Amino acid sequence: MSTELVDAKVSPTGQFDILSKYEIHRLTDTSRGPQYQIFRNCALAVLNSGGYIDDGRELLETYSNFDISVIPTERAVKLQVRNAPPSAFVDGKMIRGIAEHLFAVLRDIIYVSSEITGDPRYDLVSAQGVTDAVFHILRNAGTFDTKREPRLVVCWGGHSISGAEYDYTKEVGYELALRHLDICTGCGPGAMKGPMKGATIGHAKQRDRRGQYLGISEPGIIAAEAPNPIVNQLVIMPDIEKRLEAFVRTGHGIIVFPGGAGTAEEILYLLGILLHEDNKQQPFPVIFTGPASAAEYFTQIDQFIADTLGEKARSRYQIIIDDPAEVARQMAAGIKAVRQHRKDNGDAYYFNWKLKVSTEFQRPFIPTHDNMRKLALHKNQEPYLLAADLRRAFSGIVSGNVKDEGIRNVEKNGPYELCGDPQLMHSMDTLLQSFAQQQRMKLPGKAYIPCYKISAP
Amino acid sequence: MSTELVDAKVSPTGQFDILSKYEIHRLTDTSRGPQYQIFRNCALAVLNSGGYIDDGRELLETYSNFDISVIPTERAVKLQVRNAPPSAFVDGKMIRGIAEHLFAVLRDIIYVSSEITGDPRYDLVSAQGVTDAVFHILRNAGTFDTKREPRLVVCWGGHSISGAEYDYTKEVGYELALRHLDICTGCGPGAMKGPMKGATIGHAKQRDRRGQYLGISEPGIIAAEAPNPIVNQLVIMPDIEKRLEAFVRTGHGIIVFPGGAGTAEEILYLLGILLHEDNKQQPFPVIFTGPASAAEYFTQIDQFIADTLGEKARSRYQIIIDDPAEVARQMAAGIKAVRQHRKDNGDAYYFNWKLKVSTEFQRPFIPTHDNMRKLALHKNQEPYLLAADLRRAFSGIVSGNVKDEGIRNVEKNGPYELCGDPQLMHSMDTLLQSFAQQQRMKLPGKAYIPCYKISAP
Amino acid sequence: MSTELVDAKVSPTGQFDILSKYEIHRLTDTSRGPQYQIFRNCALAVLNSGGYIDDGRELLETYSNFDISVIPTERAVKLQVRNAPPSAFVDGKMIRGIAEHLFAVLRDIIYVSSEITGDPRYDLVSAQGVTDAVFHILRNAGTFDTKREPRLVVCWGGHSISGAEYDYTKEVGYELALRHLDICTGCGPGAMKGPMKGATIGHAKQRDRRGQYLGISEPGIIAAEAPNPIVNQLVIMPDIEKRLEAFVRTGHGIIVFPGGAGTAEEILYLLGILLHEDNKQQPFPVIFTGPASAAEYFTQIDQFIADTLGEKARSRYQIIIDDPAEVARQMAAGIKAVRQHRKDNGDAYYFNWKLKVSTEFQRPFIPTHDNMRKLALHKNQEPYLLAADLRRAFSGIVSGNVKDEGIRNVEKNGPYELCGDPQLMHSMDTLLQSFAQQQRMKLPGKAYIPCYKISAP
Amino acid sequence: MSTELVDAKVSPTGQFDILSKYEIHRLTDTSRGPQYQIFRNCALAVLNSGGYIDDGRELLETYSNFDISVIPTERAVKLQVRNAPPSAFVDGKMIRGIAEHLFAVLRDIIYVSSEITGDPRYDLVSAQGVTDAVFHILRNAGTFDTKREPRLVVCWGGHSISGAEYDYTKEVGYELALRHLDICTGCGPGAMKGPMKGATIGHAKQRDRRGQYLGISEPGIIAAEAPNPIVNQLVIMPDIEKRLEAFVRTGHGIIVFPGGAGTAEEILYLLGILLHEDNKQQPFPVIFTGPASAAEYFTQIDQFIADTLGEKARSRYQIIIDDPAEVARQMAAGIKAVRQHRKDNGDAYYFNWKLKVSTEFQRPFIPTHDNMRKLALHKNQEPYLLAADLRRAFSGIVSGNVKDEGIRNVEKNGPYELCGDPQLMHSMDTLLQSFAQQQRMKLPGKAYIPCYKISAP
Repeated sequence: MSTELVDAKVSPTGQFDILSKYEIHRLTDTSRGPQYQIFRNCALAVLNSGGYIDDGRELLETYSNFDISVIPTERAVKLQVRNAPPSAFVDGKMIRGIAEHLFAVLRDIIYVSSEITGDPRYDLVSAQGVTDAVFHILRNAGTFDTKREPRLVVCWGGHSISGAEYDYTKEVGYELALRHLDICTGCGPGAMKGPMKGATIGHAKQRDRRGQYLGISEPGIIAAEAPNPIVNQLVIMPDIEKRLEAFVRTGHGIIVFPGGAGTAEEILYLLGILLHEDNKQQPFPVIFTGPASAAEYFTQIDQFIADTLGEKARSRYQIIIDDPAEVARQMAAGIKAVRQHRKDNGDAYYFNWKLKVSTEFQRPFIPTHDNMRKLALHKNQEPYLLAADLRRAFSGIVSGNVKDEGIRNVEKNGPYELCGDPQLMHSMDTLLQSFAQQQRMKLPGKAYIPCYKISAP
Repeated sequence: MSTELVDAKVSPTGQFDILSKYEIHRLTDTSRGPQYQIFRNCALAVLNSGGYIDDGRELLETYSNFDISVIPTERAVKLQVRNAPPSAFVDGKMIRGIAEHLFAVLRDIIYVSSEITGDPRYDLVSAQGVTDAVFHILRNAGTFDTKREPRLVVCWGGHSISGAEYDYTKEVGYELALRHLDICTGCGPGAMKGPMKGATIGHAKQRDRRGQYLGISEPGIIAAEAPNPIVNQLVIMPDIEKRLEAFVRTGHGIIVFPGGAGTAEEILYLLGILLHEDNKQQPFPVIFTGPASAAEYFTQIDQFIADTLGEKARSRYQIIIDDPAEVARQMAAGIKAVRQHRKDNGDAYYFNWKLKVSTEFQRPFIPTHDNMRKLALHKNQEPYLLAADLRRAFSGIVSGNVKDEGIRNVEKNGPYELCGDPQLMHSMDTLLQSFAQQQRMKLPGKAYIPCYKISAP
Repeated sequence: MSTELVDAKVSPTGQFDILSKYEIHRLTDTSRGPQYQIFRNCALAVLNSGGYIDDGRELLETYSNFDISVIPTERAVKLQVRNAPPSAFVDGKMIRGIAEHLFAVLRDIIYVSSEITGDPRYDLVSAQGVTDAVFHILRNAGTFDTKREPRLVVCWGGHSISGAEYDYTKEVGYELALRHLDICTGCGPGAMKGPMKGATIGHAKQRDRRGQYLGISEPGIIAAEAPNPIVNQLVIMPDIEKRLEAFVRTGHGIIVFPGGAGTAEEILYLLGILLHEDNKQQPFPVIFTGPASAAEYFTQIDQFIADTLGEKARSRYQIIIDDPAEVARQMAAGIKAVRQHRKDNGDAYYFNWKLKVSTEFQRPFIPTHDNMRKLALHKNQEPYLLAADLRRAFSGIVSGNVKDEGIRNVEKNGPYELCGDPQLMHSMDTLLQSFAQQQRMKLPGKAYIPCYKISAP
Repeated sequence: MSTELVDAKVSPTGQFDILSKYEIHRLTDTSRGPQYQIFRNCALAVLNSGGYIDDGRELLETYSNFDISVIPTERAVKLQVRNAPPSAFVDGKMIRGIAEHLFAVLRDIIYVSSEITGDPRYDLVSAQGVTDAVFHILRNAGTFDTKREPRLVVCWGGHSISGAEYDYTKEVGYELALRHLDICTGCGPGAMKGPMKGATIGHAKQRDRRGQYLGISEPGIIAAEAPNPIVNQLVIMPDIEKRLEAFVRTGHGIIVFPGGAGTAEEILYLLGILLHEDNKQQPFPVIFTGPASAAEYFTQIDQFIADTLGEKARSRYQIIIDDPAEVARQMAAGIKAVRQHRKDNGDAYYFNWKLKVSTEFQRPFIPTHDNMRKLALHKNQEPYLLAADLRRAFSGIVSGNVKDEGIRNVEKNGPYELCGDPQLMHSMDTLLQSFAQQQRMKLPGKAYIPCYKISAP
């Protein structure tokens, strides 16, 4: 197969067309600096988006000779790739959508690291500073359109779901698009691809030519969840927390499909924020949905939330089983209320500045064994703070499952240890066991080995 | 189910926006005149495009209370539908793509009948006159774009094909679109829908936002082959012959997938034209293709052509089995030659004026039992004339199979009688029997009863 | 100077890009038929639009060798001009705006004569039939835009006005454009050019890139009043009456600047229509305006209207002297009321279908000596009928002044004879004498000889 | 008149639509900092663009109560003006073109000072660093369009020229636009306004809707040379030298009309650069032109160049008297050569990176009495270095004539003292005296008092 690997030079699209000598120099330099490895790995994930490798490490090993570099030209830069996956090319020419994703990687890894996170004048510690950074990265990626009405639905759910569930996500996407709604997901296969595929047909039927298919990824996950080619705006946020904040500030409503630990992380993040006192008045439609076969799954999630965060948390979402059209109708109605609220308050449609996201949900969580062990998993605290630590616990489990670094970490040090209030720990373990039984932790065909163990406090 | 039928008023799109009192009056009038039944039936077919009824008569019977009328307003017209199929609506509002198709029906049935075929100043008898009419109908439908490069691939093939064949047509459409080619089909399911579905994904990947999905139908077939919703330009030609001429004059190349009698009709029409002396220099890429399972099918077709029309006919097409990318590459190369030829001759890209289509291929053929019996099915004539009568024979068989009028005709008078040169008749019967065996004459699940019999000359 | 005359072939713009063989043939034929002379003369007027010849006959004599013909090409037509005025070209290439005007002439003289006025199915006798024809010609010329708000101000006034008056019309155009209003005039110099020139600057200042500068002419006047190059939509109506109807049905308000007999004709036409019972409720802003030096002029007009049509007529206009900003403010306010009225009644913004124009104002008036003599110039009739005949009288005088045929007619048969109610005839003669004294009948520098005489009844 | 002064809030256009909290805060802050006075004065100049005050100080005194501030809103900023010139408003609303200029001032004074010249990571000392800064400011202002062909003609010349000269500049602009060329000037009246006015008509005639009217100003001159409203892209460079570099790097050719000391400064700058060895191969069309009455003026300039810089300098320009069409033809031909050269070398069309501009022409020159006295005005040096110092001398004289600070400086310390090679000083004085005699140093009607004296070395 190595004989098929492709070498090519790719010309820039969009903002890399017109550069100064200074910028050409800085881009070329930075791309060779400490960011190189992340840049290369994200680029590889993007180029592999037609493939079926769902394991960061496996991908990296398969294309171990892959290389990318920034080449200065007279007035801009080109990207030179070597030993690239052949599926990214047609008759030797890179598919344009993939080339756009490739330059999105350059933009978000190299440019952002030098212009935003690397600018000494930026404050990246305070809540406002982090939110400003999230805003600048999204704006720089061109995702804001002052003329677009509120219509962006974030779809969360597993990348490793059953055929029936996948088909269901397509139908929901189709019904959303028939009602002129757009789709945002975390990229990748499964519940992140289905709604976009369905929406493509729905938008085509409604002659809605400006459908937005926004994919928000981050360097640690992109290899496992490469952007599917329908994504027409790709943004790579610097870390999980900024990615989650990007979802809740750009989306006008959120749909949760069945998933695994990553989906649970997202649900806990979302409820943690919506439970904050300052967000009480914010209309924010949240719908959990799946086909009839997923009814049990949502009963378990619902139970887990009832057990841990209580009724107030339960009031922030509705569960709709096996009715794509009703999901779309409810979401459309919810977004209508969001639009009215923003209008009444003079708020922007493209970014929810008013949503309170406290620093507990912003600070990057590094799932070392020590950090995992120290999580405060008990009810003697504000529910939103418990949600924050539960979110971190699930985040660590996702890392141990699919992220390159997490996998190595667990291979080396054994499973993470989680400890806390026994009843709560029991609820959590029950939920995770059910995920494993339903094969929601990995792509089918591979045995699942838990990366954590519950221990007494 | 009748309780779900929908009544609605639909506002015009495009050219019916700005009308004079005179036009409003004439449209309203004409729509109530002799064209009403055709208008109503085509409208019903379009509204049912989400459904799965593949039988003109069955559709008409299911929605026997369906009614449509042109309603004059202050400055234009609206369409009022009653007892319409609910699949055309979302939350009570007609899907925009379907509304566009509905107004295309109004345009092509009512407007064309009053402005083109009904204008006493038009000559509709001479070859030039017919070609002018085809041109005017297509231009009036907005299908010509002087800025578009040659990129339209006509895809022919059966509406009733196997799953493997259907998937193959999608893959071919996808590969064509990756090479920036567009799709034209006769509307309907099967080989007419697959390439468009595949192309949608290919164009999206290449960020090719102006993909053309041209559907060319005619009143007798539209009920059986309703335009799938991806069709973004729908044209209804007045009869089969003008529809075929529209295909060969707007398309820059033709791909033939496996099909039944209708596909054979199209192949014979095409070869008949290409065999004409005047068209010898015309570059015109023609590819017969299908998955491995269809190899035998094309062997038979190829044999039938060798037996009847000879080697010269065989030199006008190539057969490619089970290689979608190669099909697309060959077609792209063929169209490049077409472009060069047109450029060298100062010909238009949007309409092939230079192609000679003689009156044998233009005069509507009405498959009465008498006309069918009189066809000159022997080799004592120019091959292109034999092709013309073979085409008519297959046309009659399609009518007896799926068209409302043809079905009634055969029910009343028994099967058509075909007679001619015995060897040739044997070739034909062999081919048709193989179609029946392969279930290429009807949608699966219904028994096929031949509507013809071969008799001695 | 004859050595400078230019021969050139001009490629089509817009609708002449994509023609059928039939249309190419018909255009070529018709252009050589009875319409040729009109076609040629209008084309010459358009090509001369940079020049300063204000006399139909003089222009025709200067370029007596000018010739134009329609040349068929493979897929459309070109125009071949010979001995054309050099001012239409830059370095041998025709200025694009002038080429557009030239194809507008082809469209409105040749195409309209074959497709609208020449179509046997059209009724051109009834009031509704004439209005439909006016509508079809305007729509065919592309002047309707369903997305444009009401903003078209018709500006009438003399082509032969003083420098101070000309500057004033520019200032009014500038102030109108600052308020996002567009300009429609009858083409030509003077009060028909000034408002457009001023508006160009106003629209540029407001970054209003879609300013409409609509020129409506007719074959008999276009040589004397060639479209100035700012006109970006040129329509040539078949006769004076359809031209006047086009003004009142497309414009949302009318401003009258000082002028001569032609302006008086326009005022009488407008008041005659607004006096009709059916138009009582129609909001229709009409403003007479000029610089301080023109105050006396409007006093005379106002007096003439009081004397002949009475107070009801006077209530339909306001006179504003020397205040361009106030004129624009009043017009903007008036058009706001028009918009509200149309909206409340579901009427189109682009064409005033509801305005009653009776056949007295539609039937072409041919100013033979006999027809002029027979005009019913007395008060024993409905004021709107008196207005109709007064309008005809002034129309004849314009013809005798500047139109080729009228000038010849008067040269041959002596001045027109007008007779009627003595007091009314006196008012009329007073007005016309004042026009002559103020040099409002011809361009300065030429002696004015009246083409009419008042006689006892 | 003070009662007419206007208070208003102005909403942003373009890039100030979507701001982060951080940016809102920084803009508001910076606008109140040390840049405030420059910001306010430039804003006032822009708002006064309809007025006729041609004296920085006089303008500032007339509107001494004018005030502008940046007002934060929920998601962006507004500008609040108080006591603003009424000519900027129509019925209480700011004219959109002027609002765009106002936000250009905000962008170039406040944003640039914080993001470009104020960013510690930028090198603003080396030649490359300065050129990068010029590039970033122009790109940030949106003046680069990768799709535009080379077509930008820089027009230099006096703001205080005769009526005949002004009309001539209009005619040249008209002829340039007829040949699809655009205009760049330094803003202001006279030779900087005329070509744009003429080009507006030329572009309209050619239906060239994307005409670029680029105005490049700088804070010290903008009050005296306010951007005329036709300017549709306004950029305010931080100083004279960057402004001059912006002219020569964005323009594809340069036309010099008659002017005064400022024009001489520009000519010396341009010739100094073109005389550099590295620029020998650069095609760069330069044309000096004026009406017949200006023939003598150019003879003097030509003589001065011959006397000081020699024949090599003379070979870089041509002088064309009284022939606007020929000027346009020569310029079009010259730009065609520029296009070919850029194409052959893979250079950008929108910015001439290859032109060598050495630091002598980049370092801001502050015309203190001391700096003026020290200029090396002799021939014992490379011609391009002499050109650099001659340029500085004229720059100082412009400052003493029309800039607020320069005027105060001369009022306080007496005229500047210039000393150097006697013959050369004589040439210079002769030239300046002839400017004064021809009233080229001030707007007519004010007495001219020289702000310099020639002294022995």
